Amino acid sequence: MDGSMPSQHISERPKAVVLLSGGLDSTTTLAIAIEEGFAPYALTFRYGQRHEIEIDKARTIARSFSVGQHMVVDFDLRTFGGSALTGDLVVPKGRSADEMATGIPATYVPARNTIFLSFALAWAEVLGANHIFAGMNAIDYSGYPDCRPEYLAAFERMANLATKAAVEGKQNIQIHTPLIQLSKAEIIRRGLALGVDYSMTNSCYDPDLTTGAACGRCDACLLRLKGFAGNGIADPIAYAE
Amino acid sequence: MDGSMPSQHISERPKAVVLLSGGLDSTTTLAIAIEEGFAPYALTFRYGQRHEIEIDKARTIARSFSVGQHMVVDFDLRTFGGSALTGDLVVPKGRSADEMATGIPATYVPARNTIFLSFALAWAEVLGANHIFAGMNAIDYSGYPDCRPEYLAAFERMANLATKAAVEGKQNIQIHTPLIQLSKAEIIRRGLALGVDYSMTNSCYDPDLTTGAACGRCDACLLRLKGFAGNGIADPIAYAE
Repeated sequence: MDGSMPSQHISERPKAVVLLSGGLDSTTTLAIAIEEGFAPYALTFRYGQRHEIEIDKARTIARSFSVGQHMVVDFDLRTFGGSALTGDLVVPKGRSADEMATGIPATYVPARNTIFLSFALAWAEVLGANHIFAGMNAIDYSGYPDCRPEYLAAFERMANLATKAAVEGKQNIQIHTPLIQLSKAEIIRRGLALGVDYSMTNSCYDPDLTTGAACGRCDACLLRLKGFAGNGIADPIAYAE
Repeated sequence: MDGSMPSQHISERPKAVVLLSGGLDSTTTLAIAIEEGFAPYALTFRYGQRHEIEIDKARTIARSFSVGQHMVVDFDLRTFGGSALTGDLVVPKGRSADEMATGIPATYVPARNTIFLSFALAWAEVLGANHIFAGMNAIDYSGYPDCRPEYLAAFERMANLATKAAVEGKQNIQIHTPLIQLSKAEIIRRGLALGVDYSMTNSCYDPDLTTGAACGRCDACLLRLKGFAGNGIADPIAYAE
């Protein structure tokens, strides 16, 4: 994607709030939302994650895709604790696919997707948007409970009872998770077909804070590398050592 | 309540996250949670509301009730807009009961309770708490969609699919809204019976920022005054003029 947009003007397309973390999955999701004819409004969270690299990446990506607006919402989940992603636990490294498939990893952040989707719902109501796009995936990394289809269906049902716009019949929230049934290799294939430049993205949980290089050994790096290998191509981002 | 606790030690009682705004309803809810034998953990939000008075009140109330912990979470819903409570619209004044009963007021904040309950869910998971108490009320002020029992049931269902603890069978979230079917007069009667000192609370949407005096004319003030009048007693807080 080089910032070019479909010929239809942004104001004529249905609005969609797109959760954008700066990672591979959410960037692909943004490209799919645009390809499906939606006017994207990107939403990023600074929630006390270990590093700011993904927020910088998200800004670059949002600009490159010419989103209607890019909002970065701040709050601090570190005060609650309970996760490796917010610095409380250690990010696991070098795990095998079998190990990743067992149990819910330490990188789980309590209720994170529920909080993210709740803010998306608030913004969707103000924008008059019926659509929320999110890059959840239930195949690779199925450990997270708030990435499962039954959770997402329950959130959608709750959302349509929550807002003034929904109750007044002016809003019908649909949560779109176009990656939910794709493997990492399939996600990358889909994104490449849409022209996504994956050199803009960060997936690493624990990148080098000076160089921005990915660690290559956390679950997110291992899955990403496997996804590129599955397509027979090199990952365009830099890895440490 | 003068800070005295039930004789059972706090660590032996089941933990409950209690949403505490510093208002009459949430303070009564906190007193009820304690009376029902829960160890309360109070959660307050600084979300860009028009004034800080209610946060100061919440701190005083939390201290007075000797809660296990009081957390104030910061984020700014003003960036989304769409509400009189975050400064975007005008707070309506002097409305009749009939006017209040018609439609959803401008003080509605998009998806606010969903965001609040999502943070409560995150904290409940980290605390190992099964219980969330919230002061929603469906009788007086029935305009807010996210105060209705059907919304709350849908949130609870979603919550029990969302967390690692729930999926692992270690958590069964219950949302308690003990005020849901009470009138304002009944809420005050219940609180007074539990020894709640309502002089600690603020309900006003638009208090005098210098004196802290309530305006006496917004919907929240009118309902509160009616509630005290219904008990034949004076509201202990100061009102402007």
